[in-house]
Amino acid sequence: MSKNPAATPDWVKKLKPSGPQGSELLAIERNKSNLNVKRVSEFLFTKEELLRKDRILEILNQHDVFDKSQNYFDGRIDRFKASLARAKKLRQLSVQNGWSKEDFNLANELLSEATPYRLHDTMFLGTPEQHELFLKKAENMEIIGCYAQTELGHGSNVRGLETVAIWDPSDKTFVIHSPTLTASKWWIGTLGRMATHAVVMAQLVIDKKPYGPHPFVVQIRDMKTHQPLPNIHVGDIGPKYGFNTMDNGFVLFNKVKVPHVNLLAKFSGVDVKTNQYRKPASASLVYGTLTFVRSTIVQDAGKTLARGVVIATRYCAVRRQFKDRDAPPEEKGETQVLNYKMVQIRLLTNLAATFALHFTGKAMMGLYMENQAKMKQTATPDSKRGAGPEEMHSGSELLADLHATSCGLKSLASTIAAEGLEVCRRACGGHGYSSFSGIGPFFADYLPTTTWEGDNYMLTQQVARYLLKSARSVIKGDTPTNDTTKVLRNFLDRQDMGAAFDVLGSDTDIVAAYAWRAAYLTFEALKRRDELKMPWNDLLVDFYRLSKAHSQYLVVKNFHATLQAYETRQALGPAGLDLMEKLFRLWALHTLETEASEFYTSSACTVRQIQLARTNAVMNLLEEIRPHAVRLVDAWDFPDWQLDSSLGRYDGKVYEDMFHRASELNPLNGITVDPYPNSDVLYKDDQSETVKDFARKAKL
Amino acid sequence: MSKNPAATPDWVKKLKPSGPQGSELLAIERNKSNLNVKRVSEFLFTKEELLRKDRILEILNQHDVFDKSQNYFDGRIDRFKASLARAKKLRQLSVQNGWSKEDFNLANELLSEATPYRLHDTMFLGTPEQHELFLKKAENMEIIGCYAQTELGHGSNVRGLETVAIWDPSDKTFVIHSPTLTASKWWIGTLGRMATHAVVMAQLVIDKKPYGPHPFVVQIRDMKTHQPLPNIHVGDIGPKYGFNTMDNGFVLFNKVKVPHVNLLAKFSGVDVKTNQYRKPASASLVYGTLTFVRSTIVQDAGKTLARGVVIATRYCAVRRQFKDRDAPPEEKGETQVLNYKMVQIRLLTNLAATFALHFTGKAMMGLYMENQAKMKQTATPDSKRGAGPEEMHSGSELLADLHATSCGLKSLASTIAAEGLEVCRRACGGHGYSSFSGIGPFFADYLPTTTWEGDNYMLTQQVARYLLKSARSVIKGDTPTNDTTKVLRNFLDRQDMGAAFDVLGSDTDIVAAYAWRAAYLTFEALKRRDELKMPWNDLLVDFYRLSKAHSQYLVVKNFHATLQAYETRQALGPAGLDLMEKLFRLWALHTLETEASEFYTSSACTVRQIQLARTNAVMNLLEEIRPHAVRLVDAWDFPDWQLDSSLGRYDGKVYEDMFHRASELNPLNGITVDPYPNSDVLYKDDQSETVKDFARKAKL
Repeated sequence: MSKNPAATPDWVKKLKPSGPQGSELLAIERNKSNLNVKRVSEFLFTKEELLRKDRILEILNQHDVFDKSQNYFDGRIDRFKASLARAKKLRQLSVQNGWSKEDFNLANELLSEATPYRLHDTMFLGTPEQHELFLKKAENMEIIGCYAQTELGHGSNVRGLETVAIWDPSDKTFVIHSPTLTASKWWIGTLGRMATHAVVMAQLVIDKKPYGPHPFVVQIRDMKTHQPLPNIHVGDIGPKYGFNTMDNGFVLFNKVKVPHVNLLAKFSGVDVKTNQYRKPASASLVYGTLTFVRSTIVQDAGKTLARGVVIATRYCAVRRQFKDRDAPPEEKGETQVLNYKMVQIRLLTNLAATFALHFTGKAMMGLYMENQAKMKQTATPDSKRGAGPEEMHSGSELLADLHATSCGLKSLASTIAAEGLEVCRRACGGHGYSSFSGIGPFFADYLPTTTWEGDNYMLTQQVARYLLKSARSVIKGDTPTNDTTKVLRNFLDRQDMGAAFDVLGSDTDIVAAYAWRAAYLTFEALKRRDELKMPWNDLLVDFYRLSKAHSQYLVVKNFHATLQAYETRQALGPAGLDLMEKLFRLWALHTLETEASEFYTSSACTVRQIQLARTNAVMNLLEEIRPHAVRLVDAWDFPDWQLDSSLGRYDGKVYEDMFHRASELNPLNGITVDPYPNSDVLYKDDQSETVKDFARKAKL
Repeated sequence: MSKNPAATPDWVKKLKPSGPQGSELLAIERNKSNLNVKRVSEFLFTKEELLRKDRILEILNQHDVFDKSQNYFDGRIDRFKASLARAKKLRQLSVQNGWSKEDFNLANELLSEATPYRLHDTMFLGTPEQHELFLKKAENMEIIGCYAQTELGHGSNVRGLETVAIWDPSDKTFVIHSPTLTASKWWIGTLGRMATHAVVMAQLVIDKKPYGPHPFVVQIRDMKTHQPLPNIHVGDIGPKYGFNTMDNGFVLFNKVKVPHVNLLAKFSGVDVKTNQYRKPASASLVYGTLTFVRSTIVQDAGKTLARGVVIATRYCAVRRQFKDRDAPPEEKGETQVLNYKMVQIRLLTNLAATFALHFTGKAMMGLYMENQAKMKQTATPDSKRGAGPEEMHSGSELLADLHATSCGLKSLASTIAAEGLEVCRRACGGHGYSSFSGIGPFFADYLPTTTWEGDNYMLTQQVARYLLKSARSVIKGDTPTNDTTKVLRNFLDRQDMGAAFDVLGSDTDIVAAYAWRAAYLTFEALKRRDELKMPWNDLLVDFYRLSKAHSQYLVVKNFHATLQAYETRQALGPAGLDLMEKLFRLWALHTLETEASEFYTSSACTVRQIQLARTNAVMNLLEEIRPHAVRLVDAWDFPDWQLDSSLGRYDGKVYEDMFHRASELNPLNGITVDPYPNSDVLYKDDQSETVKDFARKAKL
């Protein structure tokens, strides 16, 4: 329907942006800082990972299917199709080049879109044990799978799922059935158009008695025709805020029979002979998966936010607007937007947050690995049979700590990343609203992270529960065995004499002040729950604040510990380290100032300290970090192709790129409208469709 | 390429959501409150406006072109086309039915999309005076116009525009020219594909001397062929975060001649005989336009936020998830999500904000009208010749106050509305991410409001400048003549004895506490600027806080004044008024608690008061308002067709509607993929395009 846009006339091709050019401005920025960008990159990612990136990028660059130039223009159906083509190609390249899992993941990360295989690759292949039955075919992608848990009527509450799997002793099968409309599986990635099989979470029913949700493998579509099997109604759930390269799907079952073996649960299930239920041996693997997924979200949050910060920082160094009000009259030209303090307080604090989150993510993943190692070490049939951390009232302390930490940090880190991305987008002014900024579309794709794998508000209850339990144990007099209980013990011992932390002079004291405030809030919440016997529901807002305070403490602690480590000091060198310490202080003191009321209420800080933090310390840090901003964002080492942003180009050719995309790639410029309302014709190039015809079509 | 989705099988059609049904739950909600919804609606909008809505809706409902069912599925080109068809139809209906301007605006508001005529209707027809030359044709839509101010390189800073209009004395014409790429006009609504004419802001140059930006009417496209005229390169700027029914455009000029008369400036311009510049008689009309547009944004902010609050509140009343932790074991079923305090603190505070903003918007528009009336009354040739408020150092005090108020409230109100919409979206859990929620797409369309007509951060400098000036006058001993100076005077008189406001017991004291804090911040900022001689740039963050504090005071003051007014008490009746007073307290105390550190630093409140506000007052208010939540959102009186939301349906049939849209309207369900990566075929229904072909196509 639309033709190609008109060719760009010669007189336009000759035009340049007014000087100084973006490339010149970024060169000046890079010259005025002595930060060793490569050293910081290697510290953030390791040399090995950077080499991997070069290697994968070179391969992807050879294939036109990875050209992203139409992404921002394509509607849902075309984007989905392009993504399917790329997903197939990625898989083919992976086989051809013998990619490792790390190679393949990195290729997906560089592509930066959720291809329709994504949930096959992660959740389907990620489900445990008995999978052997299907695993080989799934790994060879002879079957395409997905993980079908959430329903139209139930997301967070897994126990409320309505899909049933009724054991039929007569033929030893399960009957998978959707008794209601709200039982429809919903949001299931890779199910809408792609999957041939699904792991369906359904309430197991034996002899009319329910035994809770269990996973069943159900074939959904014919292996040849790819049409839904009888009594299965399946489809895509429609367009979303983002993530539209993915076919999130729904499915309803009308008494679909599956064999006994399709119940995935190594040591549990139904005894074929007795028709009796056998208890699951271990729920911890499933819970372990959730903890792992949350840890991954924490791990990636810094890098995620960094995309927005890189784009906005580079653009704000290129963009100039207004003269500084106090500039001497002889000073010519406009000021770089990055020089405005109101921009710095938004961008540089988020730049600091990228590192704060990155180091916290590393520590989180370290904790997870440590726990995995310990579990293997101490694995005995008995310990394996313990309930998962959500259920755990005694048992492995490390596991409980890991669970609470992953919940609290997932909530905090993904909130900071999501909200920070929007801050970066707005810092780009009007052009931030263009898809070519690259921030909006990426933000839209990231946003569900604040809701999935535990809603960011709901998760905070898990943290509060853990902290209350720890506090009870400390009050009881138990010897503190981990950092959390040590912090609580210390607060109890010292609360009467009060605190006097030198937050403006000592980094260690900053960490201590964050610990003090979190401990104070813990005991406040405990008093309200245990002494005042307040309803759980009435405490949810307190719990949210408590979890945030505790998680912010963890971020500050991890950031600080990273900078204390010998390897860090070696890797960064004195100049890099000095700058990183300033970023630590910027994040910690800016956050302290934002949360001021809790810091003074808990007596962790005085009002005077908070005022000084705001008016002096933070402002000075902005000034000191400003000259290094562009080099610091360079250290995140994003290839332009990954960012796909006019505003964030490494070479600063912001305006040339915006113009090129609008004028030469934009399909809307291939149509000629008939603009007059007294004419019913819409497009001059295609007079067949009129206001009237259109109306009739819309009705269908 | 895609066919219609497969028909819904009969066994699916018979399914219902699990009980209780959404319609039952909403009926219960509506029964348990005695709020007179109609009375509140009439108070918010007037009876006359509600009747107008009924009348317009009835007309629109008769035309299929206004069917919205494909909106969320359509890609950019189809959405644009649909919007063009609707825009034409609206115009035709307007002529046929003899609609007033109010009728036409309301029809657009109900349609809720930025049609491609929007900038013709507002900005082009809105530009002043000499328009007579073009106005008649524009009004008849024989020419389609737009207002071309911002450029690729300049948004906020109008004086930095690069497009030039060089006076040619030889033939008495202006030569419109784009000397650089960054001079390209950019973001111009209605220009991309639609406009035949543009009002182009260009730097007037006479005899090599610049005279600043002036507006010129330039014909852009041929009236018959609609092709660009020679030496004009024009097009659409590409996809955006939202607003994709609008063809925001770019245009470059290569020495395009326009006649003398096309310079739009009644008493200014170039003298044809002497070739000399004539000074503009009045800049205030242009500035008046900006103030009017900002006032409109303030006026609409409450209604805008209300869309999200209505949708989320209804859905959270229908959605049930988990049992309350403290619920007795015999209690069956799950809890309505709206019962969770963590949801209430997000939704009910935003519900309170809708009214706070609505009443503030009315007051803002009242102030604007008052000023308009005064200007007419006192209009003399001299006063007409004064500079606009941005420039004004003396002159009309009301005008200066109006300007500062419109800047501060525009910034605060649109920030609250935009951020509140996203809070509402997340409160809907996973389904909030679906386009069918109706919040995401609307949020995306609203978002530029935080940037245009003055960036929300930049505008706060205007407010600070006004407050500093007012404070200097008060210190000098000038007699306070308006509320701002009275507040500042009162603070100066009483600061040594301190404040003791009963914010928990007296509504009047709440208002006074907000005034006190704003005055404190004003004098703090003044000290730093005038005594410590700090650079303007170093004070921008302080100014932002100051503007926010002052504007929050205005909101609280206006909300309170509205509830004190005799007409309000008559209109709402005792029950409605009592509830509205609770909403006032909820907004005021929740905001106070959020901004706690400024309230205690200024001694407007004690730490104890802030703690009590949070733990007692706000929590109790949530409890008291909760039973009326659904009736309160009903009072906003949005027709379902306007909201276009599955989650926000008046009848509560949330799940049926989600399912219907996904299963029966979704075009992606018309395609059958070939899901296996070892096959290069993408779609089974159309094997012509393969991974390889696709790659070649993308390259073009």
